[in-house]
Amino acid sequence: MRDAPHYLALCGGVGGAKLADGLAKTLPEGALRIAVNVGDDFEHLSLHISPDLDTVLYTLGGLANRDQGWGREAESWGVLDELRRLGGDDWFLLGDKDIALHLLRRARLDQGLSLTAVTAELATRLGVKAKILPITDDKLRTVVETDEGPLAFQDYFVRRRCAPAVRAVHFEGAETARLNPQIAQALASPSLAGVILCPSNPYLSIAPMLAVQPLRQSLATLDCPVVAVSPIVAGSALKGPAAKMMREMGHAPSAATIAELYVDFADIVLADEADADLAAQNPRIRTAPTIMHSDKERLALARICLDLVKEKRGT
Amino acid sequence: MRDAPHYLALCGGVGGAKLADGLAKTLPEGALRIAVNVGDDFEHLSLHISPDLDTVLYTLGGLANRDQGWGREAESWGVLDELRRLGGDDWFLLGDKDIALHLLRRARLDQGLSLTAVTAELATRLGVKAKILPITDDKLRTVVETDEGPLAFQDYFVRRRCAPAVRAVHFEGAETARLNPQIAQALASPSLAGVILCPSNPYLSIAPMLAVQPLRQSLATLDCPVVAVSPIVAGSALKGPAAKMMREMGHAPSAATIAELYVDFADIVLADEADADLAAQNPRIRTAPTIMHSDKERLALARICLDLVKEKRGT
Repeated sequence: MRDAPHYLALCGGVGGAKLADGLAKTLPEGALRIAVNVGDDFEHLSLHISPDLDTVLYTLGGLANRDQGWGREAESWGVLDELRRLGGDDWFLLGDKDIALHLLRRARLDQGLSLTAVTAELATRLGVKAKILPITDDKLRTVVETDEGPLAFQDYFVRRRCAPAVRAVHFEGAETARLNPQIAQALASPSLAGVILCPSNPYLSIAPMLAVQPLRQSLATLDCPVVAVSPIVAGSALKGPAAKMMREMGHAPSAATIAELYVDFADIVLADEADADLAAQNPRIRTAPTIMHSDKERLALARICLDLVKEKRGT
Repeated sequence: MRDAPHYLALCGGVGGAKLADGLAKTLPEGALRIAVNVGDDFEHLSLHISPDLDTVLYTLGGLANRDQGWGREAESWGVLDELRRLGGDDWFLLGDKDIALHLLRRARLDQGLSLTAVTAELATRLGVKAKILPITDDKLRTVVETDEGPLAFQDYFVRRRCAPAVRAVHFEGAETARLNPQIAQALASPSLAGVILCPSNPYLSIAPMLAVQPLRQSLATLDCPVVAVSPIVAGSALKGPAAKMMREMGHAPSAATIAELYVDFADIVLADEADADLAAQNPRIRTAPTIMHSDKERLALARICLDLVKEKRGT
């Protein structure tokens, strides 16, 4: 007996999480696995911070702060206010609700649970049904090589607000990090119907995942379609430094660069309707409205991605 | 040259901290060292909880919640509310301000600082001038032997609300725990003018400290007076299970039992004025008003203790 078809989404933070949410609400329960970047993870105040995992958890749980693009809605700041007074590190903004989750994660990791197991527990508690899977339970850390030298991801992203010019990005631990077995299993399953790369930063969100062996090779040899949604719309990133980084590394910021970066495994790159000219030049590029302000737009984009998978399977 | 006279106070939580506060406000800056019990310490949510150290810090910093007898004034509960929702342990009540302190302590301990060093940093930040010294930087854990078997201190005290009958108390780690060098130094100094045992539970607050070698022996052989303030007033403890434990272990709950427990080192036991009859029977017992509702009463009791030290030195 063959299992019901299932899908694998790969995503980083905010934009990617929105599409993951659309997919989770469109697909039947149990049909979606979401592989999430952990290259941004770091230790802070002896807590294990997983920015992308938490953004996905909060977004799918309907708890994300939509205005701010990170953290929780209706958050309070009792701990951070006092921490500041005590002279503790306050550069990374953790609200009280966020800290509750981090205390529980720390305690569970210290009890010997894997990041995957802790994430599953948190998802259950937050009412999230989709399976949220860190790309690896091992240590994987994004290091940004800049014109000012190498910077740990959070130093580049939060402390320096992406100001230094980027020369390259590498991923500490990628050589030894083991692909999450549940992701490996999903990729090996004959029931895998399609893979969707959410509109996340290719260098900072997708590349750290692709660096975990054998993910990239597995994607390249899959029987089912791989659809990548471009985070670049009309030459700009909707959020974050993706376009700036492309320029700094000598590429035109465009969905065509996304198609090039993923040339070995992406069957279709979905660009925004604003980039119709690109689709005319590259048969792998398709266009549709990709900007997700509302829940309705998340669902619509999810539907389009799933239709593209279906169309590609039909060919 | 001889240093200015200094004093050493030994104390546990609430009642003891009040007298320590009175002493700190009465003595010149730099003249008071406060040795604090760490037998109640435990790990919770991967944080290092030091209930007595924090009560002393908060009390001397003017931040303690006076109504509730633990924790901070004007506390908020954002973290614990969310932790409960996430299914985390919520039996030990930590407010947001309290959690800020604990996150900082955890981070500093993980950086390799000693509990003494972290406490000094926190005291500075909270504007506390007296030197607050954990009795040891090593692990010391009070275990309460009850009619229901052995219970870790917090299990007995918080979870079971001191209900089980106590047979004995012992202190894990006491054989190897090293007396805080700053306390050893204070005890060895010719400038030590007196030692004051604050009105703390003799079994749960004072005994764990006395179990750390060579504290008890040092106290017994001191040149300067040792004054112990009884936490038992007219047969009852003002707070906590001290009287109940005395009965369970076959003693009359009274300042006379305190005098007996400390017979080898306490020159004077100060009982409450309600216990004038005890003083008539035991020349080591003196009486005075010992109940501290107000700041004024803290100062008054501190003054009385210091006068008793002076009187004893004069004899």
